[in-house]
Amino acid sequence: MSEKALAYIKENRDDLLGRLNDFLSIPSVSTDSAHKQDIEEAAGFLVTYLTDIGFENVEKQKTPGHPLVYAEYNGAGSDAPTVLFYGHYDVQPADPLELWDSDPFKPEVRDGRVFARGSSDDKGQVFMHLAVFEAYMKTDGKLPLNVKVCIEGEEEIGSENLYDTLHEKKEQFDADFAVISDSGMVAENQPTILYGLKGFTGIEINVTGPDHDLHSGMYGGAIRNPIMALSHILASMKNEEEVITVDGFYDDVEPLTEEERKLIADVDGENYPEATGAPETVSEEGYTAKEHTMARPTFEVNGMYGGYQGEGTKTIIPSSATAKITCRLVPGQDPEKIQGLLEDHVRRVAPTGVTVDVKKEKLSAKAYKVEPEHDLIKKAANSYTKAFGKETVYVRMGGSIPVVEWIEGIYGMPIVLLGFGTPDDRLHSPNESFPLDSFDKGMETLVYYWNEVNGNK
Amino acid sequence: MSEKALAYIKENRDDLLGRLNDFLSIPSVSTDSAHKQDIEEAAGFLVTYLTDIGFENVEKQKTPGHPLVYAEYNGAGSDAPTVLFYGHYDVQPADPLELWDSDPFKPEVRDGRVFARGSSDDKGQVFMHLAVFEAYMKTDGKLPLNVKVCIEGEEEIGSENLYDTLHEKKEQFDADFAVISDSGMVAENQPTILYGLKGFTGIEINVTGPDHDLHSGMYGGAIRNPIMALSHILASMKNEEEVITVDGFYDDVEPLTEEERKLIADVDGENYPEATGAPETVSEEGYTAKEHTMARPTFEVNGMYGGYQGEGTKTIIPSSATAKITCRLVPGQDPEKIQGLLEDHVRRVAPTGVTVDVKKEKLSAKAYKVEPEHDLIKKAANSYTKAFGKETVYVRMGGSIPVVEWIEGIYGMPIVLLGFGTPDDRLHSPNESFPLDSFDKGMETLVYYWNEVNGNK
Repeated sequence: MSEKALAYIKENRDDLLGRLNDFLSIPSVSTDSAHKQDIEEAAGFLVTYLTDIGFENVEKQKTPGHPLVYAEYNGAGSDAPTVLFYGHYDVQPADPLELWDSDPFKPEVRDGRVFARGSSDDKGQVFMHLAVFEAYMKTDGKLPLNVKVCIEGEEEIGSENLYDTLHEKKEQFDADFAVISDSGMVAENQPTILYGLKGFTGIEINVTGPDHDLHSGMYGGAIRNPIMALSHILASMKNEEEVITVDGFYDDVEPLTEEERKLIADVDGENYPEATGAPETVSEEGYTAKEHTMARPTFEVNGMYGGYQGEGTKTIIPSSATAKITCRLVPGQDPEKIQGLLEDHVRRVAPTGVTVDVKKEKLSAKAYKVEPEHDLIKKAANSYTKAFGKETVYVRMGGSIPVVEWIEGIYGMPIVLLGFGTPDDRLHSPNESFPLDSFDKGMETLVYYWNEVNGNK
Repeated sequence: MSEKALAYIKENRDDLLGRLNDFLSIPSVSTDSAHKQDIEEAAGFLVTYLTDIGFENVEKQKTPGHPLVYAEYNGAGSDAPTVLFYGHYDVQPADPLELWDSDPFKPEVRDGRVFARGSSDDKGQVFMHLAVFEAYMKTDGKLPLNVKVCIEGEEEIGSENLYDTLHEKKEQFDADFAVISDSGMVAENQPTILYGLKGFTGIEINVTGPDHDLHSGMYGGAIRNPIMALSHILASMKNEEEVITVDGFYDDVEPLTEEERKLIADVDGENYPEATGAPETVSEEGYTAKEHTMARPTFEVNGMYGGYQGEGTKTIIPSSATAKITCRLVPGQDPEKIQGLLEDHVRRVAPTGVTVDVKKEKLSAKAYKVEPEHDLIKKAANSYTKAFGKETVYVRMGGSIPVVEWIEGIYGMPIVLLGFGTPDDRLHSPNESFPLDSFDKGMETLVYYWNEVNGNK
């Protein structure tokens, strides 16, 4: 059966790529309210597609924010297992636009990659799943297992409404296991099982001094400069050895075992300077960069701004300065507790002469780890290896997928992370892209996997 | 003679205010190339005005940048002294616009003040001089002394071309003394002789890490964050006691004498928190806020930016971060030497994993001090007192007027700073304004002064 589905995908590849481009051409940016209509259009694209494939109860579920697309397939019968497939159709903002070599919302194929915002995160990978469902339906007339589809439009802004939906509609979304393709492989064409993800939390620090920008000649020497105040605060939170210097931050961190350090050492790490353009690799004292990115917590200032940013000079003392901070957490750390520690630290070190306000990121998530020996995981590894013709490696990664923690917490079902992205995809950055190799072999992997898990009820 | 001129000013006040509004309505922002036409229009306004008054050789002198307006009056005869009057018709950018209570370029009178960008710095004060020249010509048919007018359009961007002009056209601009009205009084209606000004210099620090924004989950832990790197650099340049911690920064500073500290103590200082909205006054350890603002060097970050500044969160490691820094210098300090010290410091403390670039502000100026006992200064004090009915105080101020240092350096002529601004004028900030009291009594002061200095050849 899977042979026919595989053949279908090969024969219809151009058509599938064409429809992927239609999907990627919709600028479904969720952070920016200006894109509300595009969000609706992207959700509509999915509703139509799922209906055409033959899914039942296809609905664009209204939420206080962006709609959630839900659909069911029950044709595999009550003996077959039911999988909850999760993905998201919203994308990160494309700015700064001038750094893109082609329009982020006019997909373009160059050097075997599709360049477009969302090509890897996550519209490209969502599309592959739908294409594979289509392939089975068009050839076998049915899917090897029952499916519940959950594709949200708010992943890039914290999935707040999904969180509520998962709590309120437990019965509707419940399944035997979940599959998510919103992650990557350690290298192009290197099958990778992701058995651990980092948690996530954040704060925004707002420092206010005078109620308007001041002439630096008239008031310099009498008034605290909010940018300097914020710089002192930030410098006190992480030192130049990349050690986070917030009291208690590491207290609950599960120590890295020797086995785990070996597992990490075995993974071919990427050449960070080559992949990023940074002059050199810098990581936490006492840990390799691979260990730090995969299994140690991080603290990053994602943005900072205050005062004059235009051409030339403007001799002012700015009235305020802001820093946006997010942390990636590891097993053992509690997001709310970490937010508390960050806020306490900021308040303790805040200099005089300014008002410091700390906003806590509403949505946080604990880290996630699954047993690499689980049957559903081993089958995933086999499918990968069959499709890519290469041994599958097991890794933990620095990314965070809050929904993983929620599904586990609310439903207690096993979760399989089948990611096909690669380190060069430039997620969240200009020139995001996705390799056609991943597109082809990824769909192949999914065809095998649905077959293999047929018995897993 | 002066009586008639005074009467003329009173009788024609509404007309004068109307023409001031026309002048202030021209958005002559020099930093922003989009305002090139407005700059030309403002210069044109002055050319027309000076010609109508009866000045000779009125010219809009072309420069590589914005034009300089020059004019002469030689009708007082060879026995009368010649004054070089300097001012500028360009203004600071008006942003952030949303913080203005009325359009920055539609002057509005509220609570006895004219609200408009440039009302105090410096178009309002320039206009007062022309109005007084007009008053004398329309009444006496001549001015009490010969005048050379020099009004530039690049003061807010460093006066680069004026600097060259003053060097190249020494004969044309030479005079017996110079008068500049581009400063303020210590309080509204408190006649103030400014006998000292700070110097000025600056640098811009650019920190670059990866060549594009990175996903913080994929690379957090392997790559140095440019914002954190910049925060560490800035925090190392000035401590929380407001002491500049750059090696050698204070080496050449003329120490404050006890006499000077007393002179400063005698000036009624403003209530800084009340005037600025800052929660409290903060100044250099060991000095009062008045001493620091008037007579001690300062270091201010005027603007800083890097990474994501939009709504919500964006979990990236930004590819770069920038800080714009300017310092106000005191007598003894050499701007170029200070720039060198700042750059050396930045390079020394710059962390690994990033590339740090330091741009030096091209235009700098030494500090300026004049003898409070000079005859031209004492006459200015008398004119002030006559007009405002209050004793004149002598102060040094934190502002910098590079042209003062240049005129002194190139021509060696005495310079009198006749400023009529007030601490509440919000120079360089939203809601800049200028008191009508200063407008009226300021013109009165000028009428008296031109009379008094009649013999000063």
